[in-house]
Amino acid sequence: MGAPQELPEWPHLEKLLATVPTPFLMVNLADIRRRYLELQRVFPGVKIYYSVKANPAVQVLGLLRDLGAYFDIASIYELDRLLGLSVPPARISYGNTIKKEKDIAYAYERGVRYYASDSDEDMRKIARAAPGSRIFFRIITEGSGADWPLSKKFGAHPDVLFTLILEARELGLDPMGLSFHVGSQQRDIGQWDQSIAHCRYLFDACREKGTELSMINLGGGLPSNYLHETLGLDVYAGEILRFVEEDFPKNPPELWIEPGRGMVGDAGILASEVVLISQKNRRDIHKWVYIDAGLFGGLIETLGEAIKYPILTDRTSSLAATETVVRDYPRERADMEVVLAGPTCDSMDILYQNHRYRLPRDLSVGDHVFFLSTGAYTTSYSSVEFNGFPPLKAYFIDGDQPA
Amino acid sequence: MGAPQELPEWPHLEKLLATVPTPFLMVNLADIRRRYLELQRVFPGVKIYYSVKANPAVQVLGLLRDLGAYFDIASIYELDRLLGLSVPPARISYGNTIKKEKDIAYAYERGVRYYASDSDEDMRKIARAAPGSRIFFRIITEGSGADWPLSKKFGAHPDVLFTLILEARELGLDPMGLSFHVGSQQRDIGQWDQSIAHCRYLFDACREKGTELSMINLGGGLPSNYLHETLGLDVYAGEILRFVEEDFPKNPPELWIEPGRGMVGDAGILASEVVLISQKNRRDIHKWVYIDAGLFGGLIETLGEAIKYPILTDRTSSLAATETVVRDYPRERADMEVVLAGPTCDSMDILYQNHRYRLPRDLSVGDHVFFLSTGAYTTSYSSVEFNGFPPLKAYFIDGDQPA
Repeated sequence: MGAPQELPEWPHLEKLLATVPTPFLMVNLADIRRRYLELQRVFPGVKIYYSVKANPAVQVLGLLRDLGAYFDIASIYELDRLLGLSVPPARISYGNTIKKEKDIAYAYERGVRYYASDSDEDMRKIARAAPGSRIFFRIITEGSGADWPLSKKFGAHPDVLFTLILEARELGLDPMGLSFHVGSQQRDIGQWDQSIAHCRYLFDACREKGTELSMINLGGGLPSNYLHETLGLDVYAGEILRFVEEDFPKNPPELWIEPGRGMVGDAGILASEVVLISQKNRRDIHKWVYIDAGLFGGLIETLGEAIKYPILTDRTSSLAATETVVRDYPRERADMEVVLAGPTCDSMDILYQNHRYRLPRDLSVGDHVFFLSTGAYTTSYSSVEFNGFPPLKAYFIDGDQPA
Repeated sequence: MGAPQELPEWPHLEKLLATVPTPFLMVNLADIRRRYLELQRVFPGVKIYYSVKANPAVQVLGLLRDLGAYFDIASIYELDRLLGLSVPPARISYGNTIKKEKDIAYAYERGVRYYASDSDEDMRKIARAAPGSRIFFRIITEGSGADWPLSKKFGAHPDVLFTLILEARELGLDPMGLSFHVGSQQRDIGQWDQSIAHCRYLFDACREKGTELSMINLGGGLPSNYLHETLGLDVYAGEILRFVEEDFPKNPPELWIEPGRGMVGDAGILASEVVLISQKNRRDIHKWVYIDAGLFGGLIETLGEAIKYPILTDRTSSLAATETVVRDYPRERADMEVVLAGPTCDSMDILYQNHRYRLPRDLSVGDHVFFLSTGAYTTSYSSVEFNGFPPLKAYFIDGDQPA
């Protein structure tokens, strides 16, 4: 059992259920505040760059701005939103390695001075459009052990980066450090060890050539509480900081982390309603449960059943009594194997078919189905109007305030 | 070679490229008009229900309304749009088998009288909320041979449907016929044969019980011109109508078709721009080409590389001269194997990695990359703001008018 599941405040949820139609996402800002403070505590002295793409709602960004967080952006659109919320550009890094030159210029004109890079062409763009900026170079990682792995889309091999780093100075840039990302929802802490060792190698190689790197961006990958258990945040932090200490016993580098899912994932609960329950064939032992939330309406991370959210229904017992029932759904009451699917006419819009969730046998049309830990990568992924359905709406509460 | 590739009018595209930023979708209404008239010609006497979800733009719906088309909807949101365009409700069928009862009531109150169903629970909802309506029952199909298969999400086994059909009368409904869907972009015409045989069996079984079915909805599945060749529309129509004739030599049933992709797919061209070209490792033989359109910005059907769009660049030659180069990209000029990826920080946002497209070796940042046959399932699938990027914009031209 990892970090305790921060369950949303149920009175807020019950109020929402009584007033707005499903599907919707309820985000508890109090959970995000607690998580931020916890991250500060377990990663002392580490700069926390919130990965805006995980949940770009102004309510979330405003809260983190007030808490003093830094922000990592993937596009100029995210930059505009942050600046609109009066976030100082000095607290923003442009972490996408795939950038148009005009977008780099746009960010530079607005004061952004930190950029990620992993290719010669991108670095030359930065040199032209954002002269003198500070660059962190992204090391390619395998991402094994991650529920939502990172493939080879980002980063480059250390040898390629070595050449880039030395070239950076000649181009008038400041090669400040390195970054890597072990994959989102990374369940193998050892993955950080390997990447930090790559950093050590590059720090040494660059120093020999007279270039001192001074920063390591440890990326994201910190987990949310999904169906499969993970270790606690304190264990992650302790191990990761120990890896750094071992590889950098003197002159410790400046450290950044970029939590996205790890910051907001557990703060969301997606409420849906059962639309239909059917059986395709007299001999089928499982039923099809169709709900009004689907793959293209916020639950895209169920693609390939990558992310397995904890699921609750209001049939099990009263809402108030469900707080203890999260991972270990009581088998004796949840004795119906189901395929869970969304409401659209698209055959791809199936949430879980291979992993058979067990739901109460008396589940009925109109009952609610709740997906926990849906605070990250849900609303922003939602389709514009697939099958005509509107995008997933989000409501924000602050569970630390009275309901 | 199948239906001739209806290439967009290049003067329109050049004008758009000069005035609006990429990425964008250009839809040529003239192509849709030609396609509708062709469908009428090769499917004489068959009612054409356009599957709105494929492209719900008002420009497309207005054109098809004027041509006299019927419409199949997946949601009440699509219904609202059609009614807003003064489409008579008598020309609308509600083909989604997953419906909330209040949505059925909403459609019924507005005059919709045709509904698809495949389960006892859904039929009882229709009986309560839309009494006396005409029902077509959906037969489950395997969908093999389809590039975007239909899984088992929709339809039920004929034995299940047989019971439902007989029950429908008792519930005060009019069981008018059957429907099936062989899977989108179906390349095996024989799939229709099998489903039509199931219809024959159910027509007979119901007649024995005193219920006369009178309609078969042949569904969608008609192909667009993607990378892999398909047979022509006339061949599809000829074969499908022959299957019906053979199974129903006397008293031929009323026939419907529901083209979505087959109506609008070839009418669209998605224009994107190269953002970055990089090499991850000195030893890699392929390059990564990152463009400003991606999986979550309209190209979701590249998921699992299911749909392989024909791709052109403006590097090959001048735009005006590329009209003959669609499927058979000239190998001698396209000698660089690439992985094609989108612009977001999501590692899933890779379009083609296993299928290695070959692009010109001199392809450069700022060049255009065009995806042909992108008129269906692109704009409406687009994410609201993933990574902050705005949804894919569409521009409509009518290539039959002067440019």
